Amino acid sequence: MADTLHTPTEDLHETLLRMGEQARAASAALAKAGPAARTKAILAMADALVAADSDILEANARDLDGGKQKGLSSAMMDRLALDAERVAAIADALRAVADLPDPVGTEIARWTVPSGLDIARVRTPLGVIGIIYEARPNVTADAAALCIRSGNAAILRAGSESLHSSIAIASALREGLASVGLPEDAVQLVQTTDRAAVGHMLTGLNGNIDVIVPRGGKGLVARVQAEARVPVIGHLEGLCHTYVDGAADPQKAVDIVVNAKMRRTGICGATETLLIDQAIASDLLPAIASALTDAGCTIKGDAAAQALVANMEAATEEDWRTEYLDTIISVRVVDGVAGAMAHIEEYGTSHTECIITEDQATAETFLSEVDSGIVIHNASTQFADGGQFGMGAEIGIATGRIHARGPVGAEQLTIFKYLVRGTGQTRP
Amino acid sequence: MADTLHTPTEDLHETLLRMGEQARAASAALAKAGPAARTKAILAMADALVAADSDILEANARDLDGGKQKGLSSAMMDRLALDAERVAAIADALRAVADLPDPVGTEIARWTVPSGLDIARVRTPLGVIGIIYEARPNVTADAAALCIRSGNAAILRAGSESLHSSIAIASALREGLASVGLPEDAVQLVQTTDRAAVGHMLTGLNGNIDVIVPRGGKGLVARVQAEARVPVIGHLEGLCHTYVDGAADPQKAVDIVVNAKMRRTGICGATETLLIDQAIASDLLPAIASALTDAGCTIKGDAAAQALVANMEAATEEDWRTEYLDTIISVRVVDGVAGAMAHIEEYGTSHTECIITEDQATAETFLSEVDSGIVIHNASTQFADGGQFGMGAEIGIATGRIHARGPVGAEQLTIFKYLVRGTGQTRP
Repeated sequence: MADTLHTPTEDLHETLLRMGEQARAASAALAKAGPAARTKAILAMADALVAADSDILEANARDLDGGKQKGLSSAMMDRLALDAERVAAIADALRAVADLPDPVGTEIARWTVPSGLDIARVRTPLGVIGIIYEARPNVTADAAALCIRSGNAAILRAGSESLHSSIAIASALREGLASVGLPEDAVQLVQTTDRAAVGHMLTGLNGNIDVIVPRGGKGLVARVQAEARVPVIGHLEGLCHTYVDGAADPQKAVDIVVNAKMRRTGICGATETLLIDQAIASDLLPAIASALTDAGCTIKGDAAAQALVANMEAATEEDWRTEYLDTIISVRVVDGVAGAMAHIEEYGTSHTECIITEDQATAETFLSEVDSGIVIHNASTQFADGGQFGMGAEIGIATGRIHARGPVGAEQLTIFKYLVRGTGQTRP
Repeated sequence: MADTLHTPTEDLHETLLRMGEQARAASAALAKAGPAARTKAILAMADALVAADSDILEANARDLDGGKQKGLSSAMMDRLALDAERVAAIADALRAVADLPDPVGTEIARWTVPSGLDIARVRTPLGVIGIIYEARPNVTADAAALCIRSGNAAILRAGSESLHSSIAIASALREGLASVGLPEDAVQLVQTTDRAAVGHMLTGLNGNIDVIVPRGGKGLVARVQAEARVPVIGHLEGLCHTYVDGAADPQKAVDIVVNAKMRRTGICGATETLLIDQAIASDLLPAIASALTDAGCTIKGDAAAQALVANMEAATEEDWRTEYLDTIISVRVVDGVAGAMAHIEEYGTSHTECIITEDQATAETFLSEVDSGIVIHNASTQFADGGQFGMGAEIGIATGRIHARGPVGAEQLTIFKYLVRGTGQTRP
């Protein structure tokens, strides 16, 4: 990858503009290569990763050294660490992406119009996708593979903590592409920790980045929102709600709420706020609270909730706006489904919301009226995941309003064009 | 509509921010109102237009006076002019939109995953759409109706030439909405000729505009491209190509090229550049050129084309980049379909391209590899139109890469969400 390193004679902006041009050219070749060639490429990328195993682990050791010096938490260090087994797991994840159906060229719809024209809407790649992420080095491989699966070129910007590992992984992926005759510039990694690189990517590199996919914490998200001059697809914030309706089954309510909050607290689909119908709060909140406390969760409630459960901390306005990503939940007693929906409209981030009820009509009202990418009836919000949706790998959950919402997999990284087949028609 | 006029005590930016907030609130109500209520609203808007007939014509007379003073061309004056018949035609166009299927709530896909969850992908409105347009006053009504059909609120910014007419039309549309109990702020018109209003809209009004749809000439387009901080869906430029292959049927070639260029030269689907295979150029170009000349078209060709047709002007590099929107065509002799595709990749604007050939394999190569929103085999590029595609009304042709390409109708003004129906599932 020496050709994408900027040298002292070229500034960072020029380097990135050149990467954009290279990506655009590679994306055209990749789109034309066809599904079988893309499958072969992803398998070759997986093999190349395993073959580059020792280079990757050596690079990872440098990242771990750097992490120690920076005083990263042990959780962060664990996320950063690779061993031969983890590299093999990353390669296996690529093979799973190679197994996914290739969306490019798929016919979405086809019809004939009165003029006799036969019109087909078929999927095409988006073009060049800029992915800006933090932490885990496996994202470099996962994101690149999903882009290749969908016929797109990727410009990757890794977190500084994992930069050496990401460079080694990207280098292997590029070798894999080249080994099957596809342009290695279909996967390029920005090889600097200079944060100005993010700013340049957000300008779209002279029209050579079509979409930005951010994956990271609030700092990154805020920057992307403020600066992006190209469309953004991705997960901004996941302040997910679970609403326990008056007609909820008590056991389902306890089981789902505990799972939705506590199964994994650090993922975007974790429930952050529990809304409970005043009609059932006194019967059910104590049991839910006790199960959450037993699972190690801290509960912060409004006055009505505090009145029902001993020693509950008070929730403030700020709590309704907080994505804890931790073993903390806020609880509010609301006036039925309308109250729950009003709270979600005010504080939600359009990610994932759940209703627990045995009343079908109430469930359908909630499903129809709540304006989030994913709306769930009687199941945990932790199902908000491309794999759980049967979509294979995902690059994130989209919380914006255009192009795609919910899990973003290979299909969501495509757009369409119209193929019009005529027999000599002219328009009257 | 006095409430959306900015007064000396409120600056333009504040006015627009308030319009954004009003639009957001109205869009939520509109989305929840349901298909029947939206149909009723569009019919009421049509009736209100006819009822406001004299107000609209009075306002239009002021625009025509202004146009005369500005020295608008007679073509421009004709596009601006309304009479009772044209107002009735605008109302009829609204009734046609009322007849279109309402896309909101439509199930796009539904499946069950191994966990037993039933997952449905259903269409939802985009939210608030900002439409910036020029010239014809009927766009005010058409665009508003398509937004209502798809459950979206509209913030409209009309051209200064038609501002009085647009204010009168928007006022009638709002009366129609109010008459059926829907929020009139679902349709708001920016009531100033101050061009700073466009800049404010392009910032997204604090997140209260989800998408910008531009309809206008190069000046507007350049500004939108440079300044937009929200996604843009729309027609930027339509530099459409027709390629006559060596295996073309000669008569089809003549008929289609003349129609594609000359049927209406001012629309975005008009062919601007003719590419002709060198294998057939000497046989066929003279006949095509003669038919074009007979139809009143000026031809500018490369050296190879000039060698085949007497008195042909020379085409320069600039011609390959020019959307004439006039009775002018550029002609280039190319080396087969590969040469045609290389020219289109270099100079095209991803709008509409056509191949004329009797060779199916060549046609399929062109359809598959040309990366434009619409790719046509053996029919005129002037079919690039939502109505001709059987989609009903359109708000324009999208030439960007995300969300939608090709004709943008009611369906393309929606996005989707996932409804997940469970029976108590927790995630392992």
